[in-house]
Amino acid sequence: MVNTTEHWGEVPAAWNRRHLLGLEELSAEEILLILDQAERFRNVLKRGDRKIPLLNDKTCVNLFFENSTRTRVSFGLAARRIGADVIEFAASTSSIAKGESIIDTAKNIEAMQIDCVIVRHSCPGTPKFLAENLRCSVLNAGDGPHEHPTQGLLDILTIRQRFGTLKGLTVALIGDIAHSRTARSNIWGLKKLGANVIVCGPSTLVSTHWKDVGVEYCYNLDEILDRADVLNLLRIQFERQVMRPFPSIAEYSHLYGMNGARMRRTKENVLIIAPGPINRGVEVTPEVADGSHSAILEQVTNGVAVRMAALWLTLGQK
Amino acid sequence: MVNTTEHWGEVPAAWNRRHLLGLEELSAEEILLILDQAERFRNVLKRGDRKIPLLNDKTCVNLFFENSTRTRVSFGLAARRIGADVIEFAASTSSIAKGESIIDTAKNIEAMQIDCVIVRHSCPGTPKFLAENLRCSVLNAGDGPHEHPTQGLLDILTIRQRFGTLKGLTVALIGDIAHSRTARSNIWGLKKLGANVIVCGPSTLVSTHWKDVGVEYCYNLDEILDRADVLNLLRIQFERQVMRPFPSIAEYSHLYGMNGARMRRTKENVLIIAPGPINRGVEVTPEVADGSHSAILEQVTNGVAVRMAALWLTLGQK
Amino acid sequence: MVNTTEHWGEVPAAWNRRHLLGLEELSAEEILLILDQAERFRNVLKRGDRKIPLLNDKTCVNLFFENSTRTRVSFGLAARRIGADVIEFAASTSSIAKGESIIDTAKNIEAMQIDCVIVRHSCPGTPKFLAENLRCSVLNAGDGPHEHPTQGLLDILTIRQRFGTLKGLTVALIGDIAHSRTARSNIWGLKKLGANVIVCGPSTLVSTHWKDVGVEYCYNLDEILDRADVLNLLRIQFERQVMRPFPSIAEYSHLYGMNGARMRRTKENVLIIAPGPINRGVEVTPEVADGSHSAILEQVTNGVAVRMAALWLTLGQK
Repeated sequence: MVNTTEHWGEVPAAWNRRHLLGLEELSAEEILLILDQAERFRNVLKRGDRKIPLLNDKTCVNLFFENSTRTRVSFGLAARRIGADVIEFAASTSSIAKGESIIDTAKNIEAMQIDCVIVRHSCPGTPKFLAENLRCSVLNAGDGPHEHPTQGLLDILTIRQRFGTLKGLTVALIGDIAHSRTARSNIWGLKKLGANVIVCGPSTLVSTHWKDVGVEYCYNLDEILDRADVLNLLRIQFERQVMRPFPSIAEYSHLYGMNGARMRRTKENVLIIAPGPINRGVEVTPEVADGSHSAILEQVTNGVAVRMAALWLTLGQK
Repeated sequence: MVNTTEHWGEVPAAWNRRHLLGLEELSAEEILLILDQAERFRNVLKRGDRKIPLLNDKTCVNLFFENSTRTRVSFGLAARRIGADVIEFAASTSSIAKGESIIDTAKNIEAMQIDCVIVRHSCPGTPKFLAENLRCSVLNAGDGPHEHPTQGLLDILTIRQRFGTLKGLTVALIGDIAHSRTARSNIWGLKKLGANVIVCGPSTLVSTHWKDVGVEYCYNLDEILDRADVLNLLRIQFERQVMRPFPSIAEYSHLYGMNGARMRRTKENVLIIAPGPINRGVEVTPEVADGSHSAILEQVTNGVAVRMAALWLTLGQK
Repeated sequence: MVNTTEHWGEVPAAWNRRHLLGLEELSAEEILLILDQAERFRNVLKRGDRKIPLLNDKTCVNLFFENSTRTRVSFGLAARRIGADVIEFAASTSSIAKGESIIDTAKNIEAMQIDCVIVRHSCPGTPKFLAENLRCSVLNAGDGPHEHPTQGLLDILTIRQRFGTLKGLTVALIGDIAHSRTARSNIWGLKKLGANVIVCGPSTLVSTHWKDVGVEYCYNLDEILDRADVLNLLRIQFERQVMRPFPSIAEYSHLYGMNGARMRRTKENVLIIAPGPINRGVEVTPEVADGSHSAILEQVTNGVAVRMAALWLTLGQK
């Protein structure tokens, strides 16, 4: 066990938020503060200390209204690794089926002296709505196509670990930009930290309104391969698409999938990341996913560290 | 952490039950003993001490055969807050699907050195059946329309917090009395502690046999509004009703729903409680549910405290 | 709390496996080592010490792709009783539904700094496949009809407790040998420890290839009743059978079910075990299942102890 007081001290005074709703509302300083804290936690985890008793009197609830493995488990692990209890809430077996509103469900959970609600919901704005109506902390674990801030943070942390900084890097987000909360959180975070962002995919999945915040867009992956320091390969979110946005998966894979041939035309030290779960053979071939440029599994490790940091910063304040 | 020995001492000698099956079988003294203990736990929780290590070597199982959010989570939290481990048992993914009888499932769980089974089942008498066949403690978390003792206790605790005593109070239970285990547990508990009880609802949902234990019945909410100190607004249990017991939800709401207009005809210090999950616009309007007379969320907090008390009393005996 | 260092010492040097995939690959010495360790844990549990802090910095995941109550709960309890954390993974709500491969799911879980994957899957060889591809420990909780090593071990531990040794005993496995991973793990373990094994059931469910490893086979239960020291009554795995292997359940029960009449023709001190969940009235009557010769519930208690031993041996090495 690590001694709390000695190693970790207090939550930095520069952080005074009780919620983590998205990266759009954070300053560059706040994002760096989370990244720095996550880096410290990650180093401790890697060293083999799996428990840091920082939040021993806190209880979190995993309030997930959409399917999830990694995010739900990652938050749960993160909470326990800094000493908090975690209650699992499965929407399908809940009072929602009896006609209860989400705010009543959340207020009921809070009334049980819960300190933090980690929420995933298909409706954008749900975390914000809960934050406005609850006294406890709210962490956004993905709200429809809006934001997924801890995914954005873990992507950015993984990039920073490889390149040391985000300033001046060119990061390309490939694929389903329109339906991707991961894309949105990446764009806000990357821009704030000084990276150039390119969004690239079929025109049906790439909206041009991102131009307004200085994002470049492009419909041809091959045109940007030699310019990108980082390729973030987004998953095709079949479950979010009402209409089929491209003729076939084979065509998508042909035009936008990363494979060995395309890897030979990238920068020498290009970094491949993907929010996962990956669809092998669609947006990425095994050769690339398992290759030396890929940091896909490092992202997962960073995810736990980022969530530990988010939980500690929002819940650990005096 | 609170020091066990110093603050909590031993389970009172006046308590010697290993099970909590219903309020019908408890004496007034036993009910008061649970309420007093729950009050002590509640004060500690409210002060911010979230862990009281009283049952550190005990393991409970949440054996729920019906959907539940609040009761399952509330019991789980209560157990952990006094140091016990909780195992979740989901009926749908269990051996019940392989043809195992409930008693075999329960005996198997007990053979894993489980100390307490918290059971919810659609069949009345299931907790009693398990208690007769297991050596470990059994707590009833709702058995069909029969009893839901911890719900009754938390309702009564909430009333006592507001009025100081139950003696002489008039408590009206409004709505679906026929299908409500909450109604049954309330009636037994309230009568034993000296309250007057009125059951009120459509004649199809209010049986007159309660007359035998001194309960008043009535089909017209407006007739009793000015006499009740407490209005307990039961949920219409759509999922338990084979036939439709009234013409429409709109009519039910018109005749039995609590709204602003009816609130103006109640006693000045009337208390509104509801076992939840509430159906806003059916048995209660938002104006009433969120108003100053409502103690609906206080009930939820009391629920954790009542369950901590029930667990400690049944499991904490030498 | 038991003092770790004093009572438990180090994992014996004779054990150097990080995985438990099946009993076929273990030596007699290794099997005995698990049994001895399980016996020590069982004695401590029975004495009332429910927590032994041996693996406090370890986290296990229950990765179950098939329905399970007892095995999943038993592993979970075993892990927690030696201090490890357990993460539950429900296949139906997971990323598998989003098209992720099992190895990617497992690698993602491992990347969260998980120390042990406890896996059940309908496909034989899944645990071995994971063990070859992960750095963490893998424990087989049942892989199709292949092996279920902890079930085999708990059966064998239960027999040894009754008879003191396995050497020279005659153990009959009755029923669905073809689809039973329990049968396979029993056969390998029992033969290695010197028992005689008879497999007995309808010819459609008993293959003769076991002759090659010295197992006797037989289609008539009544012929072997007076020779068996142990009758292990396997469940008819209706969910694994593509075609109906016998005319009716009534006929199966008539020919292969253990009942009071058959009990009177067994050895005087015959031991009845069954891996459960049992189908009362099919492979065993209540008279036999609940009778004095039955150790069915002892098996469940032993199951927790065996799994504690398996977890400690694979995870507790320096």
